[in-house]
Amino acid sequence: RSGEMAKLAQIIDNEVFRAYATYTTIVLLKMMLMSLITAYFRITRKAFVNPEDTASFGKGESAKKYLRTDPDVERVRRGHLNDLENIVPFLGIGLLYALSGPELSTALLHFRIFTGARILHTCAYLIPLPQPGRGLSWAVGYAVTISMAYKVLKTGLYL
Amino acid sequence: RSGEMAKLAQIIDNEVFRAYATYTTIVLLKMMLMSLITAYFRITRKAFVNPEDTASFGKGESAKKYLRTDPDVERVRRGHLNDLENIVPFLGIGLLYALSGPELSTALLHFRIFTGARILHTCAYLIPLPQPGRGLSWAVGYAVTISMAYKVLKTGLYL
Amino acid sequence: RSGEMAKLAQIIDNEVFRAYATYTTIVLLKMMLMSLITAYFRITRKAFVNPEDTASFGKGESAKKYLRTDPDVERVRRGHLNDLENIVPFLGIGLLYALSGPELSTALLHFRIFTGARILHTCAYLIPLPQPGRGLSWAVGYAVTISMAYKVLKTGLYL
Repeated sequence: RSGEMAKLAQIIDNEVFRAYATYTTIVLLKMMLMSLITAYFRITRKAFVNPEDTASFGKGESAKKYLRTDPDVERVRRGHLNDLENIVPFLGIGLLYALSGPELSTALLHFRIFTGARILHTCAYLIPLPQPGRGLSWAVGYAVTISMAYKVLKTGLYL
Repeated sequence: RSGEMAKLAQIIDNEVFRAYATYTTIVLLKMMLMSLITAYFRITRKAFVNPEDTASFGKGESAKKYLRTDPDVERVRRGHLNDLENIVPFLGIGLLYALSGPELSTALLHFRIFTGARILHTCAYLIPLPQPGRGLSWAVGYAVTISMAYKVLKTGLYL
Repeated sequence: RSGEMAKLAQIIDNEVFRAYATYTTIVLLKMMLMSLITAYFRITRKAFVNPEDTASFGKGESAKKYLRTDPDVERVRRGHLNDLENIVPFLGIGLLYALSGPELSTALLHFRIFTGARILHTCAYLIPLPQPGRGLSWAVGYAVTISMAYKVLKTGLYL
Protein backbone atom coordinates (compact mmCIF):
# COMPACT_ATOMS: atom_id res chain seq x y z
CA ARG A 1 0.00 0.00 0.00
CA SER A 2 2.74 2.51 0.82
CA GLY A 3 4.16 1.81 -2.62
CA GLU A 4 0.91 2.93 -4.23
CA MET A 5 0.82 6.03 -2.06
CA ALA A 6 4.36 6.82 -3.13
CA LYS A 7 3.32 6.50 -6.76
CA LEU A 8 0.40 8.88 -6.26
CA ALA A 9 2.72 11.23 -4.40
CA GLN A 10 5.00 11.25 -7.45
CA ILE A 11 2.13 12.44 -9.62
CA ILE A 12 1.24 15.27 -7.26
CA ASP A 13 4.97 16.09 -6.90
CA ASN A 14 5.27 16.69 -10.62
CA GLU A 15 5.65 20.46 -10.97
CA VAL A 16 3.26 20.88 -13.91
CA PHE A 17 0.63 18.87 -12.08
CA ARG A 18 1.16 20.88 -8.88
CA ALA A 19 0.73 24.08 -10.88
CA TYR A 20 -2.48 22.69 -12.39
CA ALA A 21 -3.71 21.73 -8.92
CA THR A 22 -2.93 25.17 -7.53
CA TYR A 23 -4.56 27.25 -10.27
CA THR A 24 -7.55 24.93 -10.63
CA THR A 25 -8.20 25.18 -6.90
CA ILE A 26 -7.90 28.97 -7.00
CA VAL A 27 -10.26 29.34 -9.95
CA LEU A 28 -12.81 26.91 -8.43
CA LEU A 29 -12.68 28.81 -5.11
CA LYS A 30 -13.28 32.02 -7.07
CA MET A 31 -16.32 30.38 -8.68
CA MET A 32 -17.58 29.23 -5.26
CA LEU A 33 -17.28 32.83 -4.05
CA MET A 34 -20.11 33.70 -6.48
CA SER A 35 -22.52 31.71 -4.27
CA LEU A 36 -21.64 33.89 -1.28
CA ILE A 37 -21.99 37.09 -3.32
CA THR A 38 -25.39 35.92 -4.59
CA ALA A 39 -26.50 35.21 -1.01
CA TYR A 40 -25.20 38.61 0.11
CA PHE A 41 -27.20 40.45 -2.57
CA ARG A 42 -30.32 38.32 -1.99
CA ILE A 43 -30.26 39.23 1.70
CA THR A 44 -29.33 42.92 1.38
CA ARG A 45 -31.67 43.51 -1.61
CA LYS A 46 -34.35 41.30 -0.04
CA ALA A 47 -34.90 39.46 -3.32
CA PHE A 48 -35.66 35.75 -2.98
CA VAL A 49 -37.02 33.05 -5.22
CA ASN A 50 -38.18 30.29 -2.83
CA PRO A 51 -41.22 31.01 -0.61
CA GLU A 52 -39.60 29.16 2.31
CA ASP A 53 -36.71 31.65 2.21
CA THR A 54 -38.97 34.58 3.07
CA ALA A 55 -40.74 32.92 6.01
CA SER A 56 -38.74 35.00 8.51
CA PHE A 57 -40.35 38.15 7.05
CA GLY A 58 -43.79 36.98 8.19
CA LYS A 59 -46.63 35.27 6.37
CA GLY A 60 -48.84 36.09 3.41
CA GLU A 61 -48.47 39.33 1.46
CA SER A 62 -45.84 40.84 3.75
CA ALA A 63 -43.43 38.01 2.84
CA LYS A 64 -44.58 37.56 -0.76
CA LYS A 65 -43.30 40.95 -1.83
CA TYR A 66 -39.73 39.70 -1.33
CA LEU A 67 -40.24 36.98 -3.96
CA ARG A 68 -38.85 39.09 -6.76
CA THR A 69 -35.86 39.43 -9.06
CA ASP A 70 -33.24 42.09 -8.43
CA PRO A 71 -30.83 43.40 -11.12
CA ASP A 72 -27.77 42.99 -8.87
CA VAL A 73 -28.68 39.42 -7.91
CA GLU A 74 -29.28 38.51 -11.56
CA ARG A 75 -25.94 40.04 -12.56
CA VAL A 76 -24.02 37.89 -10.05
CA ARG A 77 -25.95 34.81 -11.20
CA ARG A 78 -25.02 35.48 -14.83
CA GLY A 79 -21.38 35.80 -13.79
CA HIS A 80 -21.66 32.50 -11.91
CA LEU A 81 -23.16 30.70 -14.91
CA ASN A 82 -20.47 32.13 -17.17
CA ASP A 83 -17.89 30.75 -14.72
CA LEU A 84 -19.46 27.30 -14.98
CA GLU A 85 -19.49 27.46 -18.78
CA ASN A 86 -15.79 28.37 -18.92
CA ILE A 87 -14.21 26.79 -15.84
CA VAL A 88 -15.64 23.31 -16.53
CA PRO A 89 -13.74 23.12 -19.88
CA PHE A 90 -10.60 24.41 -18.11
CA LEU A 91 -10.99 21.75 -15.40
CA GLY A 92 -11.17 18.90 -17.92
CA ILE A 93 -8.91 20.13 -20.73
CA GLY A 94 -6.41 21.57 -18.22
CA LEU A 95 -6.05 18.19 -16.48
CA LEU A 96 -5.43 16.41 -19.78
CA TYR A 97 -3.03 19.16 -20.81
CA ALA A 98 -1.09 18.83 -17.54
CA LEU A 99 -0.74 15.08 -18.22
CA SER A 100 0.34 15.64 -21.84
CA GLY A 101 3.87 16.64 -20.83
CA PRO A 102 4.03 20.38 -21.57
CA GLU A 103 7.03 22.53 -20.65
CA LEU A 104 6.63 23.85 -17.09
CA SER A 105 7.04 27.47 -18.21
CA THR A 106 4.46 27.08 -20.99
CA ALA A 107 2.02 25.38 -18.65
CA LEU A 108 2.43 28.07 -15.99
CA LEU A 109 1.80 30.72 -18.65
CA HIS A 110 -1.48 29.02 -19.64
CA PHE A 111 -2.70 28.50 -16.08
CA ARG A 112 -1.75 32.00 -14.89
CA ILE A 113 -3.33 33.81 -17.85
CA PHE A 114 -6.54 31.76 -17.55
CA THR A 115 -6.82 32.41 -13.81
CA GLY A 116 -6.09 36.12 -14.22
CA ALA A 117 -8.59 36.41 -17.07
CA ARG A 118 -11.38 34.78 -15.05
CA ILE A 119 -10.71 37.02 -12.03
CA LEU A 120 -10.78 40.05 -14.34
CA HIS A 121 -14.00 38.73 -15.94
CA THR A 122 -15.70 38.60 -12.54
CA CYS A 123 -14.57 42.14 -11.69
CA ALA A 124 -15.71 43.40 -15.11
CA TYR A 125 -19.11 41.75 -14.58
CA LEU A 126 -19.70 42.91 -11.02
CA ILE A 127 -18.40 46.50 -11.10
CA PRO A 128 -19.46 46.59 -14.09
CA LEU A 129 -16.69 47.80 -16.40
CA PRO A 130 -17.65 49.21 -19.80
CA GLN A 131 -17.27 46.85 -22.74
CA PRO A 132 -15.08 45.44 -24.23
CA GLY A 133 -13.59 44.81 -20.76
CA ARG A 134 -15.75 41.80 -19.95
CA GLY A 135 -15.70 40.52 -23.52
CA LEU A 136 -11.90 40.64 -23.75
CA SER A 137 -11.31 38.92 -20.41
CA TRP A 138 -13.75 36.20 -21.48
CA ALA A 139 -12.00 35.80 -24.86
CA VAL A 140 -8.54 35.49 -23.29
CA GLY A 141 -9.66 32.64 -21.01
CA TYR A 142 -11.40 31.00 -23.97
CA ALA A 143 -8.27 31.25 -26.15
CA VAL A 144 -6.07 29.74 -23.42
CA THR A 145 -8.42 26.74 -23.16
CA ILE A 146 -8.39 26.28 -26.96
CA SER A 147 -4.59 26.38 -26.93
CA MET A 148 -4.46 23.64 -24.25
CA ALA A 149 -7.03 21.56 -26.19
CA TYR A 150 -4.84 21.82 -29.29
CA LYS A 151 -1.82 20.50 -27.32
CA VAL A 152 -3.89 17.61 -25.90
CA LEU A 153 -5.17 16.56 -29.32
CA LYS A 154 -1.73 16.99 -30.95
CA THR A 155 -0.05 14.85 -28.26
CA GLY A 156 -2.54 12.10 -27.67
CA LEU A 157 -5.18 11.95 -30.41
CA TYR A 158 -6.83 8.54 -30.39
CA LEU A 159 -10.12 8.46 -32.26
CA ARG B 1 1.27 -2.07 -22.58
CA SER B 2 0.17 -4.42 -19.81
CA GLY B 3 2.73 -2.64 -17.61
CA GLU B 4 0.92 0.65 -18.18
CA MET B 5 -2.41 -0.96 -17.42
CA ALA B 6 -0.96 -2.33 -14.20
CA LYS B 7 0.20 1.17 -13.26
CA LEU B 8 -3.25 2.61 -13.88
CA ALA B 9 -4.72 -0.26 -11.88
CA GLN B 10 -2.48 0.72 -8.97
CA ILE B 11 -3.95 4.20 -8.99
CA ILE B 12 -7.51 2.96 -8.95
CA ASP B 13 -6.52 0.38 -6.31
CA ASN B 14 -5.43 3.10 -3.93
CA GLU B 15 -8.11 3.19 -1.22
CA VAL B 16 -8.42 6.97 -1.02
CA PHE B 17 -8.79 7.15 -4.79
CA ARG B 18 -11.36 4.36 -4.79
CA ALA B 19 -13.34 6.23 -2.12
CA TYR B 20 -13.16 9.39 -4.24
CA ALA B 21 -14.32 7.42 -7.29
CA THR B 22 -17.23 5.89 -5.37
CA TYR B 23 -18.57 9.08 -3.79
CA THR B 24 -18.01 11.19 -6.90
CA THR B 25 -19.96 8.67 -8.96
CA ILE B 26 -22.78 8.63 -6.41
CA VAL B 27 -23.03 12.40 -6.24
CA LEU B 28 -22.90 12.75 -10.05
CA LEU B 29 -25.64 10.10 -10.43
CA LYS B 30 -27.69 12.05 -7.89
CA MET B 31 -27.21 15.19 -10.00
CA MET B 32 -28.24 13.29 -13.15
CA LEU B 33 -31.41 12.20 -11.35
CA MET B 34 -32.49 15.87 -11.39
CA SER B 35 -32.90 15.63 -15.19
CA LEU B 36 -35.38 12.77 -14.78
CA ILE B 37 -37.28 14.62 -12.04
CA THR B 38 -37.46 17.71 -14.27
CA ALA B 39 -38.82 15.59 -17.13
CA TYR B 40 -41.34 13.95 -14.77
CA PHE B 41 -42.70 17.33 -13.61
CA ARG B 42 -42.71 18.79 -17.13
CA ILE B 43 -44.83 15.89 -18.34
CA THR B 44 -47.21 15.61 -15.34
CA ARG B 45 -47.59 19.42 -15.00
CA LYS B 46 -47.72 19.82 -18.79
CA ALA B 47 -45.25 22.70 -18.66
CA PHE B 48 -42.80 22.85 -21.56
CA VAL B 49 -40.43 25.40 -22.98
CA ASN B 50 -39.72 24.20 -26.54
CA PRO B 51 -42.58 24.41 -29.09
CA GLU B 52 -41.49 21.07 -30.64
CA ASP B 53 -42.06 19.39 -27.24
CA THR B 54 -45.79 20.17 -27.29
CA ALA B 55 -46.44 18.93 -30.84
CA SER B 56 -48.12 15.76 -29.53
CA PHE B 57 -50.80 17.96 -27.88
CA GLY B 58 -51.96 19.15 -31.29
CA LYS B 59 -51.26 22.31 -33.25
CA GLY B 60 -51.80 26.01 -32.70
CA GLU B 61 -53.40 27.40 -29.53
CA SER B 62 -54.26 23.98 -28.07
CA ALA B 63 -50.55 23.15 -27.88
CA LYS B 64 -49.32 26.68 -27.13
CA LYS B 65 -50.97 26.78 -23.71
CA TYR B 66 -48.49 24.15 -22.50
CA LEU B 67 -45.55 26.47 -23.22
CA ARG B 68 -45.46 27.84 -19.69
CA THR B 69 -43.43 27.80 -16.51
CA ASP B 70 -44.54 25.70 -13.54
CA PRO B 71 -43.39 26.34 -9.94
CA ASP B 72 -42.49 22.67 -9.36
CA VAL B 73 -40.48 22.43 -12.58
CA GLU B 74 -38.62 25.65 -11.75
CA ARG B 75 -37.89 24.37 -8.24
CA VAL B 76 -36.24 21.18 -9.57
CA ARG B 77 -34.26 23.24 -12.09
CA ARG B 78 -32.95 25.51 -9.33
CA GLY B 79 -31.89 22.42 -7.37
CA HIS B 80 -30.15 21.09 -10.48
CA LEU B 81 -28.26 24.34 -11.07
CA ASN B 82 -27.25 24.45 -7.39
CA ASP B 83 -25.88 20.92 -7.82
CA LEU B 84 -23.79 22.04 -10.80
CA GLU B 85 -22.46 25.04 -8.87
CA ASN B 86 -21.39 22.86 -5.93
CA ILE B 87 -20.58 19.44 -7.41
CA VAL B 88 -18.23 20.82 -10.09
CA PRO B 89 -15.89 22.25 -7.39
CA PHE B 90 -16.13 18.94 -5.50
CA LEU B 91 -15.25 17.03 -8.69
CA GLY B 92 -12.10 19.07 -9.31
CA ILE B 93 -10.91 19.88 -5.79
CA GLY B 94 -11.84 16.38 -4.57
CA LEU B 95 -9.68 14.74 -7.25
CA LEU B 96 -6.69 16.92 -6.35
CA TYR B 97 -7.34 16.27 -2.65
CA ALA B 98 -7.44 12.49 -3.24
CA LEU B 99 -4.04 12.77 -4.97
CA SER B 100 -2.56 14.93 -2.19
CA GLY B 101 -2.09 11.95 0.12
CA PRO B 102 -4.69 12.48 2.87
CA GLU B 103 -5.33 9.92 5.63
CA LEU B 104 -7.95 7.42 4.45
CA SER B 105 -10.20 8.08 7.46
CA THR B 106 -10.02 11.86 6.96
CA ALA B 107 -10.73 11.54 3.25
CA LEU B 108 -13.71 9.24 3.87
CA LEU B 109 -15.07 11.75 6.37
CA HIS B 110 -14.87 14.53 3.77
CA PHE B 111 -16.44 12.47 0.96
CA ARG B 112 -19.22 11.03 3.13
CA ILE B 113 -20.24 14.35 4.67
CA PHE B 114 -20.25 16.07 1.27
CA THR B 115 -22.35 13.33 -0.32
CA GLY B 116 -24.78 13.26 2.59
CA ALA B 117 -25.08 17.05 2.60
CA ARG B 118 -25.90 17.18 -1.12
CA ILE B 119 -28.53 14.44 -0.81
CA LEU B 120 -30.07 16.34 2.12
CA HIS B 121 -29.92 19.56 0.07
CA THR B 122 -31.93 17.97 -2.71
CA CYS B 123 -34.53 16.64 -0.26
CA ALA B 124 -34.72 20.04 1.45
CA TYR B 125 -35.23 21.71 -1.93
CA LEU B 126 -37.82 19.32 -3.32
CA ILE B 127 -40.03 18.62 -0.28
CA PRO B 128 -39.43 21.62 0.56
CA LEU B 129 -38.16 21.72 4.15
CA PRO B 130 -38.41 25.02 6.06
CA GLN B 131 -35.22 27.06 6.29
CA PRO B 132 -32.51 26.80 7.52
CA GLY B 133 -32.64 23.16 6.38
CA ARG B 134 -31.61 23.83 2.81
CA GLY B 135 -29.18 26.59 3.79
CA LEU B 136 -27.39 24.41 6.34
CA SER B 137 -27.04 21.40 4.04
CA TRP B 138 -25.62 23.72 1.38
CA ALA B 139 -23.17 25.26 3.86
CA VAL B 140 -21.91 21.86 5.07
CA GLY B 141 -21.07 20.73 1.52
CA TYR B 142 -19.44 24.12 0.86
CA ALA B 143 -17.32 23.89 4.03
CA VAL B 144 -16.13 20.36 3.16
CA THR B 145 -14.98 21.59 -0.27
CA ILE B 146 -13.12 24.53 1.31
CA SER B 147 -11.42 22.13 3.74
CA MET B 148 -10.24 19.92 0.85
CA ALA B 149 -9.04 23.00 -1.08
CA TYR B 150 -7.01 24.06 1.95
CA LYS B 151 -5.31 20.64 2.07
CA VAL B 152 -4.55 20.76 -1.68
CA LEU B 153 -2.98 24.22 -1.47
CA LYS B 154 -1.06 23.37 1.73
CA THR B 155 0.37 20.19 0.18
CA GLY B 156 1.14 21.23 -3.35
CA LEU B 157 1.07 25.01 -3.75
CA TYR B 158 3.00 25.97 -6.89
CA LEU B 159 2.27 29.48 -8.10
CA ARG C 1 12.18 14.72 -12.14
CA SER C 2 12.44 13.12 -15.55
CA GLY C 3 11.38 9.85 -13.90
CA GLU C 4 8.14 11.47 -12.78
CA MET C 5 7.57 12.92 -16.22
CA ALA C 6 8.08 9.46 -17.69
CA LYS C 7 5.47 8.07 -15.30
CA LEU C 8 2.97 10.75 -16.29
CA ALA C 9 3.77 10.05 -19.91
CA GLN C 10 2.91 6.39 -19.34
CA ILE C 11 -0.54 7.37 -18.12
CA ILE C 12 -1.25 9.56 -21.12
CA ASP C 13 0.24 6.85 -23.39
CA ASN C 14 -2.32 4.32 -22.19
CA GLU C 15 -4.70 3.86 -25.11
CA VAL C 16 -7.93 3.96 -23.08
CA PHE C 17 -6.78 7.13 -21.38
CA ARG C 18 -5.78 8.69 -24.70
CA ALA C 19 -9.22 7.85 -26.08
CA TYR C 20 -10.83 9.45 -23.01
CA ALA C 21 -8.62 12.53 -23.46
CA THR C 22 -9.53 12.81 -27.14
CA TYR C 23 -13.31 12.47 -26.80
CA THR C 24 -13.50 14.59 -23.64
CA THR C 25 -11.62 17.37 -25.40
CA ILE C 26 -13.91 17.12 -28.44
CA VAL C 27 -17.09 17.21 -26.37
CA LEU C 28 -15.82 20.11 -24.23
CA LEU C 29 -14.87 22.06 -27.37
CA LYS C 30 -18.38 21.38 -28.70
CA MET C 31 -19.79 22.80 -25.44
CA MET C 32 -17.54 25.85 -25.72
CA LEU C 33 -18.89 26.42 -29.24
CA MET C 34 -22.29 27.18 -27.63
CA SER C 35 -20.80 30.41 -26.21
CA LEU C 36 -19.87 31.57 -29.70
CA ILE C 37 -23.31 30.65 -31.09
CA THR C 38 -24.97 32.55 -28.24
CA ALA C 39 -22.81 35.60 -28.97
CA TYR C 40 -23.62 35.30 -32.69
CA PHE C 41 -27.38 35.29 -32.05
CA ARG C 42 -27.17 38.08 -29.45
CA ILE C 43 -25.39 40.30 -31.97
CA THR C 44 -27.45 39.43 -35.07
CA ARG C 45 -30.79 39.46 -33.16
CA LYS C 46 -29.69 42.52 -31.15
CA ALA C 47 -30.87 40.91 -27.91
CA PHE C 48 -28.70 41.66 -24.88
CA VAL C 49 -29.05 41.35 -21.15
CA ASN C 50 -26.38 43.67 -19.71
CA PRO C 51 -26.89 47.45 -20.16
CA GLU C 52 -23.13 47.93 -20.75
CA ASP C 53 -23.38 45.61 -23.79
CA THR C 54 -25.73 47.97 -25.62
CA ALA C 55 -23.69 51.14 -25.04
CA SER C 56 -22.48 51.11 -28.67
CA PHE C 57 -26.12 51.54 -29.81
CA GLY C 58 -26.29 54.94 -28.14
CA LYS C 59 -27.71 56.10 -24.81
CA GLY C 60 -31.12 56.03 -23.16
CA GLU C 61 -34.18 54.59 -24.89
CA SER C 62 -32.44 53.90 -28.20
CA ALA C 63 -30.13 51.42 -26.46
CA LYS C 64 -32.63 50.13 -23.90
CA LYS C 65 -34.80 48.49 -26.54
CA TYR C 66 -32.02 45.96 -27.18
CA LEU C 67 -32.21 44.72 -23.58
CA ARG C 68 -34.62 41.93 -24.41
CA THR C 69 -34.87 38.18 -24.73
CA ASP C 70 -34.92 36.51 -28.13
CA PRO C 71 -36.28 32.99 -28.77
CA ASP C 72 -33.18 31.92 -30.74
CA VAL C 73 -30.79 33.18 -28.07
CA GLU C 74 -32.78 31.42 -25.33
CA ARG C 75 -32.77 28.20 -27.37
CA VAL C 76 -28.97 28.17 -27.63
CA ARG C 77 -28.69 28.95 -23.92
CA ARG C 78 -30.93 25.99 -23.05
CA GLY C 79 -28.76 23.75 -25.22
CA HIS C 80 -25.67 25.08 -23.45
CA LEU C 81 -27.12 24.42 -19.99
CA ASN C 82 -28.16 20.92 -21.07
CA ASP C 83 -24.56 20.35 -22.18
CA LEU C 84 -23.30 21.38 -18.74
CA GLU C 85 -25.79 19.09 -17.01
CA ASN C 86 -24.70 16.09 -19.11
CA ILE C 87 -21.05 16.71 -19.98
CA VAL C 88 -19.99 17.36 -16.36
CA PRO C 89 -21.07 13.80 -15.34
CA PHE C 90 -19.28 12.42 -18.43
CA LEU C 91 -16.12 14.35 -17.50
CA GLY C 92 -16.02 12.90 -13.96
CA ILE C 93 -17.46 9.43 -14.45
CA GLY C 94 -15.62 9.01 -17.77
CA LEU C 95 -12.25 9.73 -16.11
CA LEU C 96 -12.92 7.20 -13.35
CA TYR C 97 -14.14 4.71 -15.95
CA ALA C 98 -10.98 5.17 -18.04
CA LEU C 99 -8.91 4.41 -14.90
CA SER C 100 -11.01 1.36 -14.01
CA GLY C 101 -9.34 -0.80 -16.65
CA PRO C 102 -12.05 -1.32 -19.30
CA GLU C 103 -11.40 -3.11 -22.58
CA LEU C 104 -10.19 -0.60 -25.18
CA SER C 105 -12.94 -1.54 -27.64
CA THR C 106 -15.66 -1.21 -24.97
CA ALA C 107 -14.29 2.12 -23.82
CA LEU C 108 -14.11 3.45 -27.38
CA LEU C 109 -17.72 2.39 -27.91
CA HIS C 110 -18.82 4.34 -24.83
CA PHE C 111 -16.84 7.48 -25.70
CA ARG C 112 -17.85 7.50 -29.37
CA ILE C 113 -21.55 6.98 -28.73
CA PHE C 114 -21.61 9.67 -26.03
CA THR C 115 -19.80 12.17 -28.24
CA GLY C 116 -22.03 11.40 -31.22
CA ALA C 117 -25.18 11.65 -29.10
CA ARG C 118 -24.22 15.05 -27.72
CA ILE C 119 -23.40 16.42 -31.18
CA LEU C 120 -26.78 15.11 -32.42
CA HIS C 121 -28.46 16.66 -29.36
CA THR C 122 -27.05 20.07 -30.24
CA CYS C 123 -28.19 19.75 -33.86
CA ALA C 124 -31.65 18.58 -32.74
CA TYR C 125 -31.90 21.59 -30.39
CA LEU C 126 -30.67 24.25 -32.80
CA ILE C 127 -32.36 23.23 -36.06
CA PRO C 128 -34.78 22.23 -34.25
CA LEU C 129 -35.65 18.66 -35.18
CA PRO C 130 -39.12 17.35 -34.26
CA GLN C 131 -39.31 15.22 -31.11
CA PRO C 132 -38.33 12.55 -30.16
CA GLY C 133 -35.05 13.47 -31.93
CA ARG C 134 -33.70 15.64 -29.13
CA GLY C 135 -35.11 13.39 -26.41
CA LEU C 136 -33.55 10.25 -27.87
CA SER C 137 -30.11 11.80 -28.39
CA TRP C 138 -30.23 13.03 -24.76
CA ALA C 139 -31.26 9.58 -23.51
CA VAL C 140 -28.46 7.81 -25.39
CA GLY C 141 -25.79 10.03 -23.82
CA TYR C 142 -27.44 9.58 -20.41
CA ALA C 143 -27.47 5.78 -20.76
CA VAL C 144 -23.79 5.68 -21.77
CA THR C 145 -22.89 7.66 -18.63
CA ILE C 146 -24.95 5.31 -16.43
CA SER C 147 -23.19 2.32 -18.03
CA MET C 148 -19.77 3.80 -17.22
CA ALA C 149 -20.89 4.61 -13.65
CA TYR C 150 -21.95 0.98 -13.21
CA LYS C 151 -18.49 -0.21 -14.30
CA VAL C 152 -16.76 2.25 -11.92
CA LEU C 153 -18.85 1.16 -8.93
CA LYS C 154 -18.51 -2.55 -9.82
CA THR C 155 -14.71 -2.27 -10.11
CA GLY C 156 -13.81 0.03 -7.26
CA LEU C 157 -16.66 0.44 -4.79
CA TYR C 158 -15.29 1.72 -1.48
CA LEU C 159 -17.96 3.16 0.78
